[in-house]
Amino acid sequence: MSKSDNLICRAGGVTAPRGFTACGVAAGIKPGRNDMAMIVSGVPAAAAGVFTLNRFKAAPVIVTERHLRRGACARAVIVNAGNANACTGKRGLRDAELMARETARVLNTHPGSILVCSTGTIGIPLPMAKIKRGIALAARALRRSGGGEAARAIMTTDTRAKLSAVSFTVGDREVRIGAMAKGAGMIAPNMATMLAFITTDAAVEKNDLRFALREAVETSFNRILVDGDQSTNDTVLCLANGLALNEPLNRRSRHWGLFQSALDKVCGRLAHEIVSDGEGVTKVVRINVRGARTEADAEMAARSIARSLLVKTSWFGADPNWGRVVCAVGYSGAAVAPGRIRVEYDGLPAVIRGVSSGLPPARLHRVIAKREFTIGVDLGLGRGKYSILTCDCSLDYVRINADYMT
Amino acid sequence: MSKSDNLICRAGGVTAPRGFTACGVAAGIKPGRNDMAMIVSGVPAAAAGVFTLNRFKAAPVIVTERHLRRGACARAVIVNAGNANACTGKRGLRDAELMARETARVLNTHPGSILVCSTGTIGIPLPMAKIKRGIALAARALRRSGGGEAARAIMTTDTRAKLSAVSFTVGDREVRIGAMAKGAGMIAPNMATMLAFITTDAAVEKNDLRFALREAVETSFNRILVDGDQSTNDTVLCLANGLALNEPLNRRSRHWGLFQSALDKVCGRLAHEIVSDGEGVTKVVRINVRGARTEADAEMAARSIARSLLVKTSWFGADPNWGRVVCAVGYSGAAVAPGRIRVEYDGLPAVIRGVSSGLPPARLHRVIAKREFTIGVDLGLGRGKYSILTCDCSLDYVRINADYMT
Repeated sequence: MSKSDNLICRAGGVTAPRGFTACGVAAGIKPGRNDMAMIVSGVPAAAAGVFTLNRFKAAPVIVTERHLRRGACARAVIVNAGNANACTGKRGLRDAELMARETARVLNTHPGSILVCSTGTIGIPLPMAKIKRGIALAARALRRSGGGEAARAIMTTDTRAKLSAVSFTVGDREVRIGAMAKGAGMIAPNMATMLAFITTDAAVEKNDLRFALREAVETSFNRILVDGDQSTNDTVLCLANGLALNEPLNRRSRHWGLFQSALDKVCGRLAHEIVSDGEGVTKVVRINVRGARTEADAEMAARSIARSLLVKTSWFGADPNWGRVVCAVGYSGAAVAPGRIRVEYDGLPAVIRGVSSGLPPARLHRVIAKREFTIGVDLGLGRGKYSILTCDCSLDYVRINADYMT
Repeated sequence: MSKSDNLICRAGGVTAPRGFTACGVAAGIKPGRNDMAMIVSGVPAAAAGVFTLNRFKAAPVIVTERHLRRGACARAVIVNAGNANACTGKRGLRDAELMARETARVLNTHPGSILVCSTGTIGIPLPMAKIKRGIALAARALRRSGGGEAARAIMTTDTRAKLSAVSFTVGDREVRIGAMAKGAGMIAPNMATMLAFITTDAAVEKNDLRFALREAVETSFNRILVDGDQSTNDTVLCLANGLALNEPLNRRSRHWGLFQSALDKVCGRLAHEIVSDGEGVTKVVRINVRGARTEADAEMAARSIARSLLVKTSWFGADPNWGRVVCAVGYSGAAVAPGRIRVEYDGLPAVIRGVSSGLPPARLHRVIAKREFTIGVDLGLGRGKYSILTCDCSLDYVRINADYMT
């Protein structure tokens, strides 16, 4: 029996676990729609985060990392859309701190227990009067069923809310994990313009929670690529409040594997949702590279294919242009032997030992006509492998991003 | 007086220098249009080449590199469009050699003096009967005024032929350099799907010719980026036949600088032409990065901006979205200090010390509304600098590449 066999899917997103409330409200940052979300744990929660590697980290990323590092438990996450509070200098840092203080005040807790996130345009100071009003509104709107509303409130170019939740049993206790995410463009190596919030009522030791979150992110959010742009604001947060009253989990626990696989599953589903809802996406494509000399080589080859504009536009044209795939591997930096590469579309070989397999093009066309398919690349050199989930580049991607204003 | 002040622009492309003939013919590879070009020097010429760094080198690249390495002088370049002869295994190598042998036969010279190039779709064997017919036709069509026709014959998605020629004086002799190029997509780091052929009647020592060509390519074809895809077939060739009867040039000659700057100018013009005629291009943008800790850092930052889909689509939308430029620098791998970066549009500061300059958006809009403009990025850390010429990503880029068939 696999570890995930006793996972039960649930509704509710971040409010599926016990003790969490959430809401979405209209602070007036974006005209005529909700633009702030708040997620609150009724009791202090162990918390962990993974953040963008972009060197121009937005102010809320810097503030939230600091709050997590100082080790206090977390009580709430406050998020605004419409303004990234990035490239805003010292004023941006003061504003992010103020957002935490204001949230702490209305929730009657200390500012260090508040995690702050922003998403939207870069370089414009946060409209703090609106942010404060939003925080006050949110504190009054919190409810046990607010997970969906919170997810909808932080959508930007997303076309749908992204929610996931599961439950499973640890000893005699039922444990729940819930999550929400937003992101549709600027999706790239090591998480890009995406925010994801995961809640659980499991009791988990803080250091182990961080370990588990890093593991889960590595195989989910870090392995998706929409356009190759890595945002200044990427954030994944996980809060574990212990209200399931299970024996506290750590890496040595008998049930650790179960917790990790549940977390992996929740993150993996949201990552798939992000690609599937990517800006203008018409094709969702998994790239599996194997047989590379090293895993690093496999990753370079996979990312090079996933990022190639020529490959992505050929998918949009439903053209099984394997030459562009081979070409992208060739300039990826990975070691290759031209006479060894094999390329498959949903298992059908297009290239064998570096040359065309002779398969009738109509058979490849049938694969690439589907909304989801897998391209397998075997470099025939070693045991290195890597997998990444990506999408096509369509006319709508260009339309959306040419129109999205500063 | 600058070294290039006595350069005179000329017409004629590769047939501008003495002793060169060329032509374009219809071999039937692409229906209803010319698809092969031949360039011939009446006397053996010193020759040099620069080639793709893609690890899946096309067969003609391998064969031409071999012919140049073996040191014989070159007599002719034979080129076909419509088929890249890439990923074609041993048969591809045999076909490329056969193309050289057949050309040598009709020109009554030896195969080692023939340089072979192909461009077009990957993975399909060359139609050798057509190629042979094209070679026979070409040998009869060669003429002193064939430079333009040759350039037009190898266009793929190019919308216009790319020609350049100059003359200048070395001692009491007039020396000419002519050139042609093709390429509009798959243009990336270290030359991509581009072919460029340079002819000169200068007498130049072979090793020094190679040195000069590398220098010229480094600051021209290696500093353009359309889509970031690097082709399997990129080739730049230079033939110097000595018919100007100048005192042979080498790196120690008094006139070397003049020759180098003329070659730089010819290559630079063609490189600009390639970007300007890039697939679907509506904006030509020069990225100048300075103040980087090292030149390598400056290059990473410049290429990251030039390759960012979000940056390229914002240009297409005529949106001065400097946040996306800063973001692309932030994930480039270059060392940055968030409080030091400065970003300018044609000299107008948009970002000063990491935050908005407060310049009215209308002023930046006026810059970005132009067809050509420059973005300057100063990282404020050191003396490293790098410049690259790039373009936007438009709806037509996607249309062209979704429709271009395997």
